[in-house]
Amino acid sequence: MAVGQTQFPNMPEIPGIKLGTTNAGIKQTVRDDLLLIDMVEGSTCAAVFTRNAFCAAPVHVAKSHLSQQPRWLLINSGNANAGTGLQGYEDAKTTCQDVAVETGGKANQVLPFSTGVIGQPLRVDKIRAAIPSAYQALNQLGWDKAARAIMTTDTFPKGVSKAITLGGHNITINGISKGAGMIQPDMATMLAFIATDAKIAQPLLQSCLDTAVEQSFNRITVDGDTSTNDACVLMASGCSSAPEITVGSESYQVFADAIMAVSKQLAELIIRDGEGATKLMRIVVEQALTDEEAVRVGKTIAHSPLVKTAFFASDPNWGRILAAVGRAGVENMVLEDVQLFLDDVCIVRNGCCADDYTEAAGQRVMAQEEITITVKLRRGQAIQEVLTCDFSYDYVKINAEYRT
Amino acid sequence: MAVGQTQFPNMPEIPGIKLGTTNAGIKQTVRDDLLLIDMVEGSTCAAVFTRNAFCAAPVHVAKSHLSQQPRWLLINSGNANAGTGLQGYEDAKTTCQDVAVETGGKANQVLPFSTGVIGQPLRVDKIRAAIPSAYQALNQLGWDKAARAIMTTDTFPKGVSKAITLGGHNITINGISKGAGMIQPDMATMLAFIATDAKIAQPLLQSCLDTAVEQSFNRITVDGDTSTNDACVLMASGCSSAPEITVGSESYQVFADAIMAVSKQLAELIIRDGEGATKLMRIVVEQALTDEEAVRVGKTIAHSPLVKTAFFASDPNWGRILAAVGRAGVENMVLEDVQLFLDDVCIVRNGCCADDYTEAAGQRVMAQEEITITVKLRRGQAIQEVLTCDFSYDYVKINAEYRT
Repeated sequence: MAVGQTQFPNMPEIPGIKLGTTNAGIKQTVRDDLLLIDMVEGSTCAAVFTRNAFCAAPVHVAKSHLSQQPRWLLINSGNANAGTGLQGYEDAKTTCQDVAVETGGKANQVLPFSTGVIGQPLRVDKIRAAIPSAYQALNQLGWDKAARAIMTTDTFPKGVSKAITLGGHNITINGISKGAGMIQPDMATMLAFIATDAKIAQPLLQSCLDTAVEQSFNRITVDGDTSTNDACVLMASGCSSAPEITVGSESYQVFADAIMAVSKQLAELIIRDGEGATKLMRIVVEQALTDEEAVRVGKTIAHSPLVKTAFFASDPNWGRILAAVGRAGVENMVLEDVQLFLDDVCIVRNGCCADDYTEAAGQRVMAQEEITITVKLRRGQAIQEVLTCDFSYDYVKINAEYRT
Repeated sequence: MAVGQTQFPNMPEIPGIKLGTTNAGIKQTVRDDLLLIDMVEGSTCAAVFTRNAFCAAPVHVAKSHLSQQPRWLLINSGNANAGTGLQGYEDAKTTCQDVAVETGGKANQVLPFSTGVIGQPLRVDKIRAAIPSAYQALNQLGWDKAARAIMTTDTFPKGVSKAITLGGHNITINGISKGAGMIQPDMATMLAFIATDAKIAQPLLQSCLDTAVEQSFNRITVDGDTSTNDACVLMASGCSSAPEITVGSESYQVFADAIMAVSKQLAELIIRDGEGATKLMRIVVEQALTDEEAVRVGKTIAHSPLVKTAFFASDPNWGRILAAVGRAGVENMVLEDVQLFLDDVCIVRNGCCADDYTEAAGQRVMAQEEITITVKLRRGQAIQEVLTCDFSYDYVKINAEYRT
């Protein structure tokens, strides 16, 4: 079950970036579950990681390797290697060592990533045995397979490709992501890997990623649960003919905008595949005092099980949305100032049901798969958007049966 | 569906307190939906109200009348009179006026309460027409009927009675509550009415209630949604032969402990009747640095849809509990220090699965209807408890179909 059209796009090569997948048999017996990404020497790489205090072993390792000019990413699905103690940490390091042996690089140039069930020992033997096969499979056109290899409860592979021109030179940006549950990124959770052939120094690449993540992955939520694993990585091979992107240049703005656009699309794909989702809700909070306030109101609505179940039922139950706005912890909020829209239909004005609102108009909007909820607070100028999905029987089913 | 034995207790008279119910036909056609409570002259009355910024019209009115030595409470179910603008406010005032006419009192001695659907106009005509009948029905033994009249999605009436002795004099405390969804009291949401024949001044009664509410109703959550309505009221008729309870006296401590016990039991009954609940989870957070920290960790676990669906499935998925602890926003939390117990079974030690844990032991605990989750943080001495229930298909069903 996914909301809207979610066909995997045609993803061209990114010069300097190769991907190889294989079946390691971690949890999957059929599709691939191990992905190796190879960046050409001289690439730069930026990453952001979950802020869950209990981050997984591979997150610790990847964080410590990020400053060592990473050349390889090793990603497995089916097991998160989280809550696995010292052994989990050793396992993550071992896989890095194996990649180093295979590629002739150094272990600290490998960033490991894991996603899947928490608290079960990593079958490191299976991963070790499969690394040579992933290495053999490396090629520049492996994006579709790569997007599939990192899936867990996802129902479709998620990819976005974007071409831009910098001073007459073509630049390509490809991104893949995974995630469907335990989604309320705080920094960046889920897994997303974005690559480009642009040339750009690491600090600038990191700053570009930080900005993009804040407005994309950090604005989505399926269930308010922030994962222990998972990360967002931005790789730049520098293989295009375009000159290096430098601070404050016009090229930087074009590039940063493109990274933002790709990140937002990848984030939206995760919500379209939200566990059990039947609807995508775009919550726009306007006229807030600050961005932080707008996000807080948006997220409070997005996390309300009462709002989410009402949307599942296509019920324009605006009382629940108002109640969520009211408990968002905003100081001196005035009910009478609040306006609420479902798409273009004004449903609440001056804190109560709009005179011209009709249930028919509300039902018409609610019958759609994608709905924009706009909340106007009449407090200031800030606008922020949060994306979420509804709460269905299938969310309960998927998560009640996850380990069985 | 309710968790555990929930039979309504035998509730004796409270001298000085009378209750009368009737069917006003607000949403119910069969059972009573209007309750009038009469306190004898000289009674004291304390109350706490929701902190949702968008509190309902009757909450505004009740707050402003609380200082006028209230004599009557008028409560309707079936409609929350919230999000109803100025008209809702006028409607609440009108019902107070009608009670005053009927009883010969003053309108500002009446506290109005409403619970039910948000955003629909109150059928004030129906309530006005029914007030005389509720007045006629006033009697000291009306507790059972009263508990039923305030129900909405509740599946059983909730009552607690407790007898104490103060210096050889008998004192009775009766309490009723309602609530099953939109439950995360922040101050006091849901409706609860507690009465006693003790004699105690209003400020002391209020302080006694504040303390009790903080440790009882403010420690439960069904879905993290804080209601716009609803309140907790403590009435003391002073009709017992016991001398007045004064500040710092031994009697005060006995009385306060009893109010605390009654409040905790009423709060627990709400969780037992949590919408769609099949399990009651008692989350005990120990060795926290502060009470606030312990509550925050407890509530983060209690609000996690992933934890709640796992419990519905009787799956001891401790990874989800750990992930919730990790995202609770506690500074410098050390994963390796955390211990996790399901009842007496240690499932996590040193941040990963305990050596001696077996799935069989975990399953045995999870098969129960009531489970204690104990989290030890090894950071300090604070202990706090939060009560919640699981997240089932029926929660989705109840809330998807609520308005239809």
